[in-house]
Amino acid sequence: MPGGPEEAYERVRPIFESVAAKVNGDPCVTWLGPGSAGHFVKMVHNGIEYAVMQLIAETYDLMKRGLGFNDDELHDIYCSWNNGELNGYLMEITSHIFSKADEKTGKRIVDEILDIAKQKGTGMWTSQSAMELQVPIPTIDLAVAMRDLSVFAKEREQAGAIYQRSQRRLTVDPDTFLSQLYSALFGAMIIIYAQGMALLAAASDKYKYDLDLGAVARIWRGGCIIRATLLEDIRAAFQVRRDLPNLLLDPSLSRKVMEHQEYLRQVVCRAAESGLPVPGLMVSLSYLDAYCSEWLPANLIQAQRDYFGAHTYERIDAKGTFHTEWEEE
Amino acid sequence: MPGGPEEAYERVRPIFESVAAKVNGDPCVTWLGPGSAGHFVKMVHNGIEYAVMQLIAETYDLMKRGLGFNDDELHDIYCSWNNGELNGYLMEITSHIFSKADEKTGKRIVDEILDIAKQKGTGMWTSQSAMELQVPIPTIDLAVAMRDLSVFAKEREQAGAIYQRSQRRLTVDPDTFLSQLYSALFGAMIIIYAQGMALLAAASDKYKYDLDLGAVARIWRGGCIIRATLLEDIRAAFQVRRDLPNLLLDPSLSRKVMEHQEYLRQVVCRAAESGLPVPGLMVSLSYLDAYCSEWLPANLIQAQRDYFGAHTYERIDAKGTFHTEWEEE
Repeated sequence: MPGGPEEAYERVRPIFESVAAKVNGDPCVTWLGPGSAGHFVKMVHNGIEYAVMQLIAETYDLMKRGLGFNDDELHDIYCSWNNGELNGYLMEITSHIFSKADEKTGKRIVDEILDIAKQKGTGMWTSQSAMELQVPIPTIDLAVAMRDLSVFAKEREQAGAIYQRSQRRLTVDPDTFLSQLYSALFGAMIIIYAQGMALLAAASDKYKYDLDLGAVARIWRGGCIIRATLLEDIRAAFQVRRDLPNLLLDPSLSRKVMEHQEYLRQVVCRAAESGLPVPGLMVSLSYLDAYCSEWLPANLIQAQRDYFGAHTYERIDAKGTFHTEWEEE
Repeated sequence: MPGGPEEAYERVRPIFESVAAKVNGDPCVTWLGPGSAGHFVKMVHNGIEYAVMQLIAETYDLMKRGLGFNDDELHDIYCSWNNGELNGYLMEITSHIFSKADEKTGKRIVDEILDIAKQKGTGMWTSQSAMELQVPIPTIDLAVAMRDLSVFAKEREQAGAIYQRSQRRLTVDPDTFLSQLYSALFGAMIIIYAQGMALLAAASDKYKYDLDLGAVARIWRGGCIIRATLLEDIRAAFQVRRDLPNLLLDPSLSRKVMEHQEYLRQVVCRAAESGLPVPGLMVSLSYLDAYCSEWLPANLIQAQRDYFGAHTYERIDAKGTFHTEWEEE
């Protein structure tokens, strides 16, 4: 498109590349695509960010209420996690947050902050757009819902008094649980990116963005909030197969998910027993289990829809749409 | 509003009431409110319907893949469930579905139907509207996402081949598990209605519908798809307190939830271990656990937002908004 925005980008590219964040000398900036492509990619970046933050918050809750860890211990754990496969900007700032003292009170600031999460709407837009495109991104949806739920602080207090589940301690060996939690978080992290990238693939198709998802992963490695070591593996997955429909189908990433999934199951169980809410971990596990199900009980949903609304159904053994008179004469 | 739609409704009311479905002689029809009130209530009805169908589908999966039950056994179980507190139209038609034979093949039709759920968008609208209103309805969001996920049948087949979790049998005593499952489903059902009614309360406030939620529960008892015995308890809850912000705060319903929640936890654990996806049950449990949490880890999310974007935060010990320079000099 001569004279179009892509050509205009080419002219300013040297300037953009000189000011962009660099990873191993590679500037993390690129032309993404026509129309709203860049905006859409940035929106999905934020949706992923919501989900990552929700998962980190759940691990914090498990360690604080579940294991009784203090801020020094939390600082150390997030530091050590940031030195492994979980390395990334959000992990790094989380470790810093737990060591930051309040000048006024001397306490850690994090303990002085109200447990009410605000938002500017980008996570919500991601979920709403994904629903329009009929792409499931349940962990992002859930992260949006949990921010909304946090706002109902007065009701939560009343409900807490009624249900009296004040003791939410985990009955586990802390060291064993911590290594399970690390694995659970890493596995769930891959699953979040799988959802976000699948959304970008569908949007690219529908809106003719012609996105190079490998380039998206490449520029997300630096200068943005979700930058993380994992993005190098994600970039590699799209280098192997540019039209990879879902990261869970990549041989290398799927091996990692398989390695870690059992720990995700363990953590989900312990949390469910204790009463500690870990919806992000749960929904990520469910996404994996449903995505890997050759068969799902959606046939029943189709039967119900045809029963009550004559919405018709498709069959396994024949093409076309069918309707049954379900009621006996 | 003389001459307005409410007065017009009053004139046709005898006709509407004569043709409406009746429960104990009471016609299930009413004037709901001004503007789009009636449409909004119908939309949320459908959102609840999505969630109820998703939960029933999960129990089907647990019994079919998890316990190896055949359609005759499933028919009997849903019949017996329909005779208890779980009584309702969707339970009733589910029991019928498992006994309906295909004239062509002689097999049960349900087993000939493709496991790909379609939708007309009303569940999606409910989720999108709830996000706009910042009301968490995670079980409905999840039901929408799971319908979307079912459509990716080819990818599910490929993923199934990679992850090879073909054996998803539950290692449980079937009779014990069935009674747990009944309780889990009933508890989750209350939690779904809690989400839907909280959404209606917020919408009524925002859009000036002046909804009588007791009347909504009353008319939902007959002639609609989510009609169920539970709606009598929900109606009663709003009779006791017209401005009840959430059904989980009602003394009678909260007692029921407390009675059943431990079984919901058990079912979630067994499913997580087995690899059977039960995201609706999981998210419902998480909603309960988060709603009953006087404290949530959202303080960390606020700290992160202030760290990376100077979005400010609120404090426990002082009014106003605050910002911290988190980075060390």
